[in-house]
Amino acid sequence: MPADDEESWVIRLLAPPAAALPPEVRVGIGDDAAVLADGRVLTVDTMVEGVHWDARSAPADVGAKLALVNASDVAACGAVPTLALLSMSLPNPVDRAWVEGFAEGLREGLAACGAALIGGDTTRSAGGVVVSLTMLGQLQAAPLLRQNAEVGDDLWVSGTLGDASLGFATSAPEGLRALRRPTPPLALGPALAARGLSRAAMDLSDGLATDLPRLCAAAGVGAEVWPEALPASDELRASGADPIPHQVGFGDDYQLVFTALPARHDDLLALGADLGLRLSKIGRVTQGPEVTLRGHAWPRSWQHFPGPQ
Amino acid sequence: MPADDEESWVIRLLAPPAAALPPEVRVGIGDDAAVLADGRVLTVDTMVEGVHWDARSAPADVGAKLALVNASDVAACGAVPTLALLSMSLPNPVDRAWVEGFAEGLREGLAACGAALIGGDTTRSAGGVVVSLTMLGQLQAAPLLRQNAEVGDDLWVSGTLGDASLGFATSAPEGLRALRRPTPPLALGPALAARGLSRAAMDLSDGLATDLPRLCAAAGVGAEVWPEALPASDELRASGADPIPHQVGFGDDYQLVFTALPARHDDLLALGADLGLRLSKIGRVTQGPEVTLRGHAWPRSWQHFPGPQ
Repeated sequence: MPADDEESWVIRLLAPPAAALPPEVRVGIGDDAAVLADGRVLTVDTMVEGVHWDARSAPADVGAKLALVNASDVAACGAVPTLALLSMSLPNPVDRAWVEGFAEGLREGLAACGAALIGGDTTRSAGGVVVSLTMLGQLQAAPLLRQNAEVGDDLWVSGTLGDASLGFATSAPEGLRALRRPTPPLALGPALAARGLSRAAMDLSDGLATDLPRLCAAAGVGAEVWPEALPASDELRASGADPIPHQVGFGDDYQLVFTALPARHDDLLALGADLGLRLSKIGRVTQGPEVTLRGHAWPRSWQHFPGPQ
Repeated sequence: MPADDEESWVIRLLAPPAAALPPEVRVGIGDDAAVLADGRVLTVDTMVEGVHWDARSAPADVGAKLALVNASDVAACGAVPTLALLSMSLPNPVDRAWVEGFAEGLREGLAACGAALIGGDTTRSAGGVVVSLTMLGQLQAAPLLRQNAEVGDDLWVSGTLGDASLGFATSAPEGLRALRRPTPPLALGPALAARGLSRAAMDLSDGLATDLPRLCAAAGVGAEVWPEALPASDELRASGADPIPHQVGFGDDYQLVFTALPARHDDLLALGADLGLRLSKIGRVTQGPEVTLRGHAWPRSWQHFPGPQ
């Protein structure tokens, strides 16, 4: 992932003005996924050897993760994954065992999220392996959009934060599992949308410190996060490490951050119980543009596996 | 592009059995694009620095070509391009001038084919630049599918073949233009479908010697091609080179090969006149599995820019 300002710059450079989009497009570039008028959503995510994984990674984990992180974007809009297209760039000669392992993991990941692979393209790579998945999904209710966050909303997150970070830093077993095979709460986004409990959500792929300002910028709001309310796993609590940098600075959580009216607090706890998911209120939406972590500075985002340069 | 057998192997490995596809999918992996029951088509194509272009290539040409080769796949199914999603992997630090040039060309290419960019993802690359575009299109008539080729059909191609090949080999100016900025006949596929003139088509990206056997394999048929009927540009004719290797062995033609009933010969010539396109009958569909070039051996496919190894 390039530094955040570079990503924003590339995306701004490429995004056509909203007025230039055809009427079938409700939301274009800038949310977790594009949203069409017929309720389809579309997203694409890419993983790069030497950036998102390295030789220590099992190829099946890479395949499964590629499916799951795309499904996480689809579900963050409130949609259910349906279809996928894969593009693979492979060095010559092809490492067949690696590709077979990757394909097995991709099948597992697609099965776990209920999406069918309908298209594929393979090209030769001049460097390492690059895999890119486009995923489609279907909404059954109004989409959850970053731009819908409103001043006065509560901020919630699902699950626990910082586990993949701890796994990366210390090889803690649960954390390594979270890093290698994320388990995004795919039922949550569609349920929030169906029950009308939230209008704005985003999945945490780059860490709360990077992702929450993106959500706030899309809505023209700010946010205040209460560090003591950030959910931590028993493993992270027991590690002795300061949990905050892990919880907000690394990413790969693939949990949802979402907004809700304060009056829906009990309904959200009931939904969490129904889905078997921990849901935690972690702060509130404020007048913009500041996004603050009460009593702390936001840690700088961490890089993934260091690459050349 | 890996050797053809490797590409087939990867795709076979990944493609779910047709029976496992949801009912909204009419055609999955194996044609130019996937086809949905609502008439949407979807395809993905990737271009890799050092494989599909090198330092001599203008970034705007890379961007335009990425849009046009995807649109060529969409149109080969008989559909009109509508929407696109881009994934870019960029080395760190980002070469901003290159990305700006690429974006300008991509915008030009998307405008030329009538598609709007609705999604984007950027990641860091550990090697060179990799760009991948997913394109959607919409059918207004029955799709043109490789599997629909039937014994007794005539074989036709649009335009001229071998120009990009000549440009690559000799830097002939028209050929270089064709190599850098292909001009796929995007109106042809939809017109063939709307007029009921063809049921099977494919775009020529890897050369007739590679692509025609793919079409025949999908339909369980063979083909006989008449070398003297292969259309050549004035530049290729004047070059003094044996035209056949250029016309069938290199690719990057982005013309359509399609089948038609012999009785529709005059209707096809009329369609070509309406669209301002040269359409040439180049052979016929036969009992399989042989795909022959009458009086010649098929030249081996050429590789694109040589990469490491």
